[in-house]
Amino acid sequence: MRILILGGDGYLGWPTAMHFSQRGHEVHAVDNYLRRRAHAEAGTDTLTPILDSLPERARAWEGVTGKHIGVTEGDVCDWETLERLFLTFRPEAIVHYGQMPSAPYSMRDRAHAVFTQYNNVVGTLNVLFAMRDIAPDAHLVKLGTMGEYGTPDIDIEEGYLEVHHNGRSDTVPFPKQPGSLYHASKVHDSTNMLFACRTWGLSATDLNQGVVYGIDTPEARLDPRLATRFDYDETFGTALNRFCVQAVIGQPLTVYGGGGQTRGYLNIVDTLQCVELAVLHRATPGEFRVFNQFTETFSLTDLAETVARAGRDVGLEVRVDHLDNPRVEEEEHYYNPAHTKLLDLGLQPHYLSETLIESMFEAIQRHTDRVIRDHMLPETRWAPRTAERAPSG
Amino acid sequence: MRILILGGDGYLGWPTAMHFSQRGHEVHAVDNYLRRRAHAEAGTDTLTPILDSLPERARAWEGVTGKHIGVTEGDVCDWETLERLFLTFRPEAIVHYGQMPSAPYSMRDRAHAVFTQYNNVVGTLNVLFAMRDIAPDAHLVKLGTMGEYGTPDIDIEEGYLEVHHNGRSDTVPFPKQPGSLYHASKVHDSTNMLFACRTWGLSATDLNQGVVYGIDTPEARLDPRLATRFDYDETFGTALNRFCVQAVIGQPLTVYGGGGQTRGYLNIVDTLQCVELAVLHRATPGEFRVFNQFTETFSLTDLAETVARAGRDVGLEVRVDHLDNPRVEEEEHYYNPAHTKLLDLGLQPHYLSETLIESMFEAIQRHTDRVIRDHMLPETRWAPRTAERAPSG
Repeated sequence: MRILILGGDGYLGWPTAMHFSQRGHEVHAVDNYLRRRAHAEAGTDTLTPILDSLPERARAWEGVTGKHIGVTEGDVCDWETLERLFLTFRPEAIVHYGQMPSAPYSMRDRAHAVFTQYNNVVGTLNVLFAMRDIAPDAHLVKLGTMGEYGTPDIDIEEGYLEVHHNGRSDTVPFPKQPGSLYHASKVHDSTNMLFACRTWGLSATDLNQGVVYGIDTPEARLDPRLATRFDYDETFGTALNRFCVQAVIGQPLTVYGGGGQTRGYLNIVDTLQCVELAVLHRATPGEFRVFNQFTETFSLTDLAETVARAGRDVGLEVRVDHLDNPRVEEEEHYYNPAHTKLLDLGLQPHYLSETLIESMFEAIQRHTDRVIRDHMLPETRWAPRTAERAPSG
Repeated sequence: MRILILGGDGYLGWPTAMHFSQRGHEVHAVDNYLRRRAHAEAGTDTLTPILDSLPERARAWEGVTGKHIGVTEGDVCDWETLERLFLTFRPEAIVHYGQMPSAPYSMRDRAHAVFTQYNNVVGTLNVLFAMRDIAPDAHLVKLGTMGEYGTPDIDIEEGYLEVHHNGRSDTVPFPKQPGSLYHASKVHDSTNMLFACRTWGLSATDLNQGVVYGIDTPEARLDPRLATRFDYDETFGTALNRFCVQAVIGQPLTVYGGGGQTRGYLNIVDTLQCVELAVLHRATPGEFRVFNQFTETFSLTDLAETVARAGRDVGLEVRVDHLDNPRVEEEEHYYNPAHTKLLDLGLQPHYLSETLIESMFEAIQRHTDRVIRDHMLPETRWAPRTAERAPSG
């Protein structure tokens, strides 16, 4: 298949590009280096050394495997770039990671919030129009997030909810209560994609993904130059990855607030499996299909204790700190999201184990000299003091 | 009260500004003339002659009533403009009409869709941040649309739905299924506003308004220079207003498709009442309150027949044509939306009557020389042929 990977330079995008290329698909990866630029501005960086550009990564991949990955350095918000890509590559599947993926980034200030929503909403609109006008039979596999749902007091279903109300019933989009303006941007995307599928007969799968952890994929293991990025800073580092770095460098694991916040998690190798399953089992024309993409749920406290235990087993001194929660979120809540559809398609989960955490410790230990200790603690607050202090109207 | 009217040059914004000014409030109206520019580009115009600018309108108002309306010619998407307004005017209530309000405009092509969502989402984000940082005690009264809900097969509630699911229950945002990319932009706004109220403790009321009809308000009646605009073209003209113009000029009333499409409707004078009720009875801090703002539901066929009957009573020859539906929408559907909250606050509805339609005929007849007959028929299709024709991937 001809598979277009938007955001192909990212933590998940690059491993996905290699994964499909290794399996004989024709892969074209697109990225505008938004993540690299955001790191440069913040003074942070990936823990793992990665090559300087997508063309260099593709050359290394070709050198190692003899397989070709096409690349474009460009922005999906730029219509001319996207249109040309669709006209020349004629994708059969589009895997869309090409977004600003950080909740803290979106909550930093007005400009970052506006940029996040502009970038994500306009990029996805462009993809939908490109499909409508150039590749109506292609299948969009779009990365959403479990954070679109929030933490309602009922079971979370996969995208839709059968509602019985005043003696009638209907199946409706599952109500969304996003936890940041980034998560809200993904809700906007879901609304637009559902509309486009219904109105234009497009096919799309929304992968509402949990928090991804891990550093190692079969293709990345082939050569150090093929490593994916690994973020551990306050903006792009997610809970488990950041905890592992903190354990290795002897800093306390920073749990935000009480630690009862429970979310879905999955190993990076399961992300690759899930995306492949979605691509190989396409949605039907007019269908906006939604999968919840995670394999297990953990509270922050669960995760921190698991990392602490694994750390002590290998001789690390690990302390767990509870910080004032920078986010506005429920710290004790019901959480029971469905996640059977990908299992039904054949997903074989790699569950979190101390062995996996220990292998992450080893990978991190190879690069401790690269750890930037600033910017690991949260500076962005969801409800900043200025809001509390502002004079009344 | 100090009331900021965003979109104060529009069909509803200008009458709202006069309405509050007449009642002794301090009013400041803002507009960037987006609507006037869109008309100029399309070669269409308001039926009623209106003054050339917001400052001229405010001068006429002051001449007639001795009352002052402050004005700013500027764009809510421009942060510096909005920030300065909040800092100098220090609004206690913000009535937000300042958006691109047309479904057909948003469906014309990719550029119009992107502009609509950019303009509406970024403008509202700017307002929310201005409130957070400058006027946290102000109350936002935002115009939403009944079109956010779509036509689910269950009763539509006012913003929220109590769901019973797998033995548990919760009250969640009512699931939205917008009918165009414009309506989707309003869904995005609702998602962002709910988040801002919960996270920053802001107060907002979302007025999910039906289709507004009518031309006459008590303040506009004081002087011809105070008239509001009246649109009847395919892009900005809504069903009843357009039908009345068609009846007067002897063109067939153009019902899209079967005509069973049922929507909520209200008289422009009831819009003014509803907005005033929302402003005077503010939402509490942290509350995102939702009202469904309409007084009656009609199918397109009901409306066309009512206009035809009224037309024949005054000697007009009126024919009703069913056009190929340019939209993708259900033409026969269940529709039972709640609308009690504004009635509970004291709304006294002005229901649609043949007398009202006849008075609209008279108002229109005074300006038949201004009718532009091009651009009354729908040219924008929700699912354009290019989508159907495009070669497969």
